[in-house]
Amino acid sequence: MPGTHASVLHEDRFFDSDPAVRRVARVLYEETRGLPIVSPHGHVDAGILADDSPFPEPTSLLIRPDHYILRMLYSRGVSMEQLGISKRGTEDPPGDPRGIWKTFAANYHLFRGTPTAAWLDYELAAVFGVRSRLDASSAASIYGEIAERLASPEFRPRALFERFNIEILATTNPASDSLEAHQRLRDSGWPGRVIPTFRPDAAIDLASAGWKAEIDALGDVTSSPILDYASLMRALTAQRAAFCSMGATATDHGVEVPVTGQLPYAEAERLYQRALAGQEVAPADARSFQAHMLMQMARLSAEDGLVMQLHAGALRDHNDSFTRSYGPHLGADIPVATEYARNLRPLLNEYGNDSRFRLILFTLDESTYARELAPLAGHYPAVLLGAPWWFHDSIEGMKRYREQVTETAGIWNTAGFTDDTRAFCSIPARHDLSRRVDANWLAGLVARHVIDLSDAHEMARALAYDLAKAAYRLDQGERG
Amino acid sequence: MPGTHASVLHEDRFFDSDPAVRRVARVLYEETRGLPIVSPHGHVDAGILADDSPFPEPTSLLIRPDHYILRMLYSRGVSMEQLGISKRGTEDPPGDPRGIWKTFAANYHLFRGTPTAAWLDYELAAVFGVRSRLDASSAASIYGEIAERLASPEFRPRALFERFNIEILATTNPASDSLEAHQRLRDSGWPGRVIPTFRPDAAIDLASAGWKAEIDALGDVTSSPILDYASLMRALTAQRAAFCSMGATATDHGVEVPVTGQLPYAEAERLYQRALAGQEVAPADARSFQAHMLMQMARLSAEDGLVMQLHAGALRDHNDSFTRSYGPHLGADIPVATEYARNLRPLLNEYGNDSRFRLILFTLDESTYARELAPLAGHYPAVLLGAPWWFHDSIEGMKRYREQVTETAGIWNTAGFTDDTRAFCSIPARHDLSRRVDANWLAGLVARHVIDLSDAHEMARALAYDLAKAAYRLDQGERG
Amino acid sequence: MPGTHASVLHEDRFFDSDPAVRRVARVLYEETRGLPIVSPHGHVDAGILADDSPFPEPTSLLIRPDHYILRMLYSRGVSMEQLGISKRGTEDPPGDPRGIWKTFAANYHLFRGTPTAAWLDYELAAVFGVRSRLDASSAASIYGEIAERLASPEFRPRALFERFNIEILATTNPASDSLEAHQRLRDSGWPGRVIPTFRPDAAIDLASAGWKAEIDALGDVTSSPILDYASLMRALTAQRAAFCSMGATATDHGVEVPVTGQLPYAEAERLYQRALAGQEVAPADARSFQAHMLMQMARLSAEDGLVMQLHAGALRDHNDSFTRSYGPHLGADIPVATEYARNLRPLLNEYGNDSRFRLILFTLDESTYARELAPLAGHYPAVLLGAPWWFHDSIEGMKRYREQVTETAGIWNTAGFTDDTRAFCSIPARHDLSRRVDANWLAGLVARHVIDLSDAHEMARALAYDLAKAAYRLDQGERG
Repeated sequence: MPGTHASVLHEDRFFDSDPAVRRVARVLYEETRGLPIVSPHGHVDAGILADDSPFPEPTSLLIRPDHYILRMLYSRGVSMEQLGISKRGTEDPPGDPRGIWKTFAANYHLFRGTPTAAWLDYELAAVFGVRSRLDASSAASIYGEIAERLASPEFRPRALFERFNIEILATTNPASDSLEAHQRLRDSGWPGRVIPTFRPDAAIDLASAGWKAEIDALGDVTSSPILDYASLMRALTAQRAAFCSMGATATDHGVEVPVTGQLPYAEAERLYQRALAGQEVAPADARSFQAHMLMQMARLSAEDGLVMQLHAGALRDHNDSFTRSYGPHLGADIPVATEYARNLRPLLNEYGNDSRFRLILFTLDESTYARELAPLAGHYPAVLLGAPWWFHDSIEGMKRYREQVTETAGIWNTAGFTDDTRAFCSIPARHDLSRRVDANWLAGLVARHVIDLSDAHEMARALAYDLAKAAYRLDQGERG
Repeated sequence: MPGTHASVLHEDRFFDSDPAVRRVARVLYEETRGLPIVSPHGHVDAGILADDSPFPEPTSLLIRPDHYILRMLYSRGVSMEQLGISKRGTEDPPGDPRGIWKTFAANYHLFRGTPTAAWLDYELAAVFGVRSRLDASSAASIYGEIAERLASPEFRPRALFERFNIEILATTNPASDSLEAHQRLRDSGWPGRVIPTFRPDAAIDLASAGWKAEIDALGDVTSSPILDYASLMRALTAQRAAFCSMGATATDHGVEVPVTGQLPYAEAERLYQRALAGQEVAPADARSFQAHMLMQMARLSAEDGLVMQLHAGALRDHNDSFTRSYGPHLGADIPVATEYARNLRPLLNEYGNDSRFRLILFTLDESTYARELAPLAGHYPAVLLGAPWWFHDSIEGMKRYREQVTETAGIWNTAGFTDDTRAFCSIPARHDLSRRVDANWLAGLVARHVIDLSDAHEMARALAYDLAKAAYRLDQGERG
Repeated sequence: MPGTHASVLHEDRFFDSDPAVRRVARVLYEETRGLPIVSPHGHVDAGILADDSPFPEPTSLLIRPDHYILRMLYSRGVSMEQLGISKRGTEDPPGDPRGIWKTFAANYHLFRGTPTAAWLDYELAAVFGVRSRLDASSAASIYGEIAERLASPEFRPRALFERFNIEILATTNPASDSLEAHQRLRDSGWPGRVIPTFRPDAAIDLASAGWKAEIDALGDVTSSPILDYASLMRALTAQRAAFCSMGATATDHGVEVPVTGQLPYAEAERLYQRALAGQEVAPADARSFQAHMLMQMARLSAEDGLVMQLHAGALRDHNDSFTRSYGPHLGADIPVATEYARNLRPLLNEYGNDSRFRLILFTLDESTYARELAPLAGHYPAVLLGAPWWFHDSIEGMKRYREQVTETAGIWNTAGFTDDTRAFCSIPARHDLSRRVDANWLAGLVARHVIDLSDAHEMARALAYDLAKAAYRLDQGERG
């Protein structure tokens, strides 16, 4: 049968072939593979679990929402229309899911050696029980197999959540979110722990197109219009409390440049009023306001205990005409060189020694791992380093991260793995890859007698489970 | 006999010693080692092949033109005069070739672990049939052996071209080149495919010392003086067409900073007139003009189909007094940190989604591989990544490139290998090294079950042959 | 017995587990492990050897002076007070050494995979003969063991110096140092070679808090008040000569940004007078003065032959309140991105081709290894690259350094290993780690047939001993 392999998933995948390493990697992985999944940062929609409706057909589930897949196919000449993404304002039909699936399958070789292939191979084989290798010839039958599975009760979101052995799943939510889906989930009595994360980017970036709408939404959800900087701070504080009451333990902040610094109150007010009046806010002013708001968010985190995450360095929507045509989050964000030592100094000077405060730093600029981030985490009590992020959430990316971070910061200044995904079905694939790569890295240290095997057992468990739970304060105040 | 080894070239050289990897590497390399050489970017003089005269003696062939060799010896205290390079304006005799060769041989240990040694070992053993290891004691006899070979018909340029199994060789030519050598080669009826590449740097950089001379030469070759910006554009367009008619499929652009952006027509004209009048052009103005001209070259590439190459990040002639004394291209260029995401945005916003346009990016700043370049290539249809360049055209350099690029961009967004050399006899050495390193990298992926062996076979062939041919549009319009 | 292991130090530690590599690594290491230690850059106090008093108890010797240890514990929530470091101005007792030792031992797992653990394991086992593994349960008994050893004559500084097989030890001294300890050492007739290094940072940085005190001390030691720029130059020149007379062969310069460039004499004088008058010197002016003084120091180095070391890229005292409370050098310095090509150009254009001048460059920004530093060292006769520094003085750090430097600069443009430590007892641990990592790196090249075994033997010796001795001109004018 074309495209059929004994098994696509080799049991030793991602392990070094050197027997001295592989032997230890297997042992370590055997102990972590069954640990529950802690997912403290991601983009799954809580509504999926609140509704618990069957997932749609395979293309809508696996291809259309995956920016890794869309951008790779687009980069090789497949149009967005061929992938079922229409130009905004056009009335094009959404595209035939089976045809899109076939286009993807015919181009699946493009993903060889990428994490997308590693994740998808896992999803097909381990989640959906597909036994053939995906290519043009097997596309139709695999589509049918997955579609059939999705129709069964075992593939409803909650059933998968339980089968995936997810202990905690954090979503990411704008400051204005009413958390209605989280409330419904809680009301349903289903015991899965799904918690929100407070991400106020849109309310803080005066230069973003959606700022005013977010401010209005934030006013609505807090039942009080936000007419000045003081009321903005009140609304954000109130919403942080609302998130806490729904189990949140963290905030998240995405910025292009991680500059921090306090503004005089009057200046913050002036910039806020300009933006509110619809006047242009100069990019430098918007950045100053953002820098100021990061200071405020750190201050509130020290007070309410929400762990502050900072994701820096993505130049969003690099491709103007593409974004105008098809929208954001389709794979056109490009990382830029990012400076942390000088930019974060005001914030860390103010809060970095405060035992109540915790800041988890993420980067897209790997040159900062050993140069700035590991030294910051290896000194400031408040700082931990987040998992290798986005483009670096990969076998080689994780290896570079461990090799460049550990010798300065150790592993206990890192925050465990975060899958950071909106693709629910890829969650176990991502954690499995991470656990394998970490087991292999530790095995390499054991084989070179840098650590001994008993150290490695403890460290493997920490990397797979303990660190994330502790870093995000998920071991405190568990929902009974 | 002093300096004699059984064989300098081990058959498993550059392969990992782990048997699981080496076994696969051998198999993959066996399939690519015999493929024809596609050399889409380099600096060989077409006149060598047009004339087909015997090469000069070994020192003139192998040492004096090789900036890798000159700089390393200079860095360790060997003077340029000892290497046969006289100060400009002096009447020094050119130096005794045998003495220079001996100096080189006595210092050959300096190159251990560098690609220069890997290439030269190959040239000596595989091209010239030398059986001894090069050092001070074997220098004279090896010189004699090579000199003897060079005198024989089998070592004429065309004979070597055929023996090297070169399918296509691209040269690099200034915009003002009459392509007389290419024409002679074509007229000769010899079937070797040697094509020019259009590199208009000197005509575009208003601040370069040779700008006016290049403009004059461009006026001469197009039989029309270039008195304004409009005639500059006309001349460049005409010469692009002339290059196309001689088989060119690509342009090349070398810049320190890859800034791009359109100028108003009047401003372009104003800067051109300043330069033409011999008035000083401020560095920022020269850069703006260059940025503008890169936009124009991209526009013309979209129209005439010439693939645009961009080599960015070399600070040329870092050592002022050295360059004044001995001239450029002798190993005194130093790379600098290079920004691509913001600098290329204007150009990519204008042409990056145009299916007619193709841009191949090269860097000397490896920190941009995973951070900017792979994401750009992994999104924009027009962008491919060029091979690891210059200082990074090496075993470890290639390994870092694959590890940092592939997980985001895959291999099909890369443009295959380019030897980029002016050293004709090193061409097979460089392709052999590249094919070995790629085979070994793929073997590592197979051994870790990231890809399977059938994938690896296809990918090895792509990296060694298919990608370069497709990327440079060499599979279109072959000369019959 | 709790915490007891057969041996903490595995004889194959840090060697790849692949037998083909490990076999060669063992052979190479066997030849270098017994070579004398050349330590051309470090921070040991010569007074320790002049006095030859017993070392204090274990905590004062091993923990309190070690900024690697202090910062890691602080980063995980251990207060400085718990480590025996009191806030300035407080009258707190110094803390119980045994209690501090126990705190450290209980947190020793934090250092797994860091060089601190590798060094300390070696010190405990090989220097102090401790047979148990350090943890909370073994802390008290290990403390006792070490304390007992320290009381014996075999553990006096000079006895250890001899047992460590140190051939040369360079200290680092401010320009104002009277070198009284070096004079006493010399007068004592003890044959150990301990030499000073001239580090005039404090006298050159007009913006540093300690500048005026250093200028006063420099005036005192040269018996002439330093009332203007000319007398500053005279005092520095005189002190360089004094250092030379005590055996110095090198200077050292630490800067945040390695900018260089000549000022007009009058401008240098103007800035000096501002600083002398206690007027504020703008940061940009202080940097210009420093840039100017680096030029002067290079000029003097060309004249007096002192090898110039440049350590660039540390943002000192990042944590303001921490530094105000506890002082500098406790682990709160953070590296920043550093530019060398453009910044060093003035200095290298003036002195880089001068055969009398030598400049050894160190970096905390690894992205500069392959991009700027190896190309500079691979061209300029004056430039060598210093060992991987500080955060990068580690197994993976050294590996990256070799992999990123060698292919462009070879090993003969590098300056050998420098332990750079103030922790006297860690010297053999650091050299042992370096020799192992280099042996392993060379073994990898042999196993991949990049070099052959005879090359590797010579290179291993060079990396372990010859290069440092030659680079720092320690083979000239040995003390008879």
